[in-house]
Amino acid sequence: MKISARNSFKGSIIALTPGAVNSEIIIDIGGGDKLVAIITNGSAKALNLAVGKDVLAFVKASSVLLMTDGGGVKLSARNALRGIIQSVTPGAVNGEVSLKLSGGAQVHAIVTHEAIKELGLEAAKEAVVVIKASSVILGVAV
Amino acid sequence: MKISARNSFKGSIIALTPGAVNSEIIIDIGGGDKLVAIITNGSAKALNLAVGKDVLAFVKASSVLLMTDGGGVKLSARNALRGIIQSVTPGAVNGEVSLKLSGGAQVHAIVTHEAIKELGLEAAKEAVVVIKASSVILGVAV
Amino acid sequence: MKISARNSFKGSIIALTPGAVNSEIIIDIGGGDKLVAIITNGSAKALNLAVGKDVLAFVKASSVLLMTDGGGVKLSARNALRGIIQSVTPGAVNGEVSLKLSGGAQVHAIVTHEAIKELGLEAAKEAVVVIKASSVILGVAV
Repeated sequence: MKISARNSFKGSIIALTPGAVNSEIIIDIGGGDKLVAIITNGSAKALNLAVGKDVLAFVKASSVLLMTDGGGVKLSARNALRGIIQSVTPGAVNGEVSLKLSGGAQVHAIVTHEAIKELGLEAAKEAVVVIKASSVILGVAV
Repeated sequence: MKISARNSFKGSIIALTPGAVNSEIIIDIGGGDKLVAIITNGSAKALNLAVGKDVLAFVKASSVLLMTDGGGVKLSARNALRGIIQSVTPGAVNGEVSLKLSGGAQVHAIVTHEAIKELGLEAAKEAVVVIKASSVILGVAV
Repeated sequence: MKISARNSFKGSIIALTPGAVNSEIIIDIGGGDKLVAIITNGSAKALNLAVGKDVLAFVKASSVLLMTDGGGVKLSARNALRGIIQSVTPGAVNGEVSLKLSGGAQVHAIVTHEAIKELGLEAAKEAVVVIKASSVILGVAV
């Protein structure tokens, strides 16, 4: 399978909380990082998700936010992963920022040109990758 | 009404599952395709949604993922619709890919330039349109 | 803290409905406008959210839809805020539209170039800012 989502993480499920419509899945993606995903119960059943199962987590680059100087505010987004910026590709309206997490995973974020300027995003700087749990898509090998 | 969402589907509700906060709505959009949407209960009530009701489903182009060579991995995203690529419009960071589903509906996806290259997306190729249920907005005529 | 999300709103919580996995939070952002957010229960607890608490609400520009001529269709998106367009910045595939809400808040939306043309979006025109509740990230000062 090839998918347009620029971000994929390998991991295994360490917690699964089913609700009436959605389920919350927590995945250990290595390097000390965890990823939380909200998917429908229908999907959790269709993929036979269970604690201990290996999964892939996909996130579109446009669903990733970046944060710097993280002090002073605590966010509701469940996923906040520290990374070092590797490259910045500017466009007219958006730009792509690529980072490497401490565990080695690559992350790509599409943010506005304005955000790149305002946050001073450039290679070698540290930034926090912020991803809402509802932006994560899970996949399992079949 | 005119809306910036590039994708709109006409259909009727074939299933509705309410939870404590969100409801899952399944819509028959014709041509054998179904679309699953997660919306809040507040919206489901405000729109008087019920099985059999006609609805419009809107999806932002930037919320659409594309997949090729679908074998090997099963995804949690509830919506996976087969289409044929009609055109690819490249930009500096993102590109727009337009497809036609088997049922005739047009779908537009904004994906990264890298994804277009890596998946070899071009006119006349087949691709699977992947949409998370939580990315779908519903509308009803009033 | 600096975050790449182009949109931030200050407000206080006026309602909080917990579900099994997600919670719905309604925020008064002033000027008569309200914002509805869906976040996980885990986040609601981690941030100690409660009615009356002051919060920041962040929304990525790419999660914002714009609507004109709102008649005829009622949408499931919980957030629909009237604004006046201040500027339009075109790109090859996407464009950025900046608006001012009646309460004074600035909103930035990334929509496709096609949408800008089709809706005739330009400075001084009125448009409705549409945001799905699940696209809102909350933050609290610590």
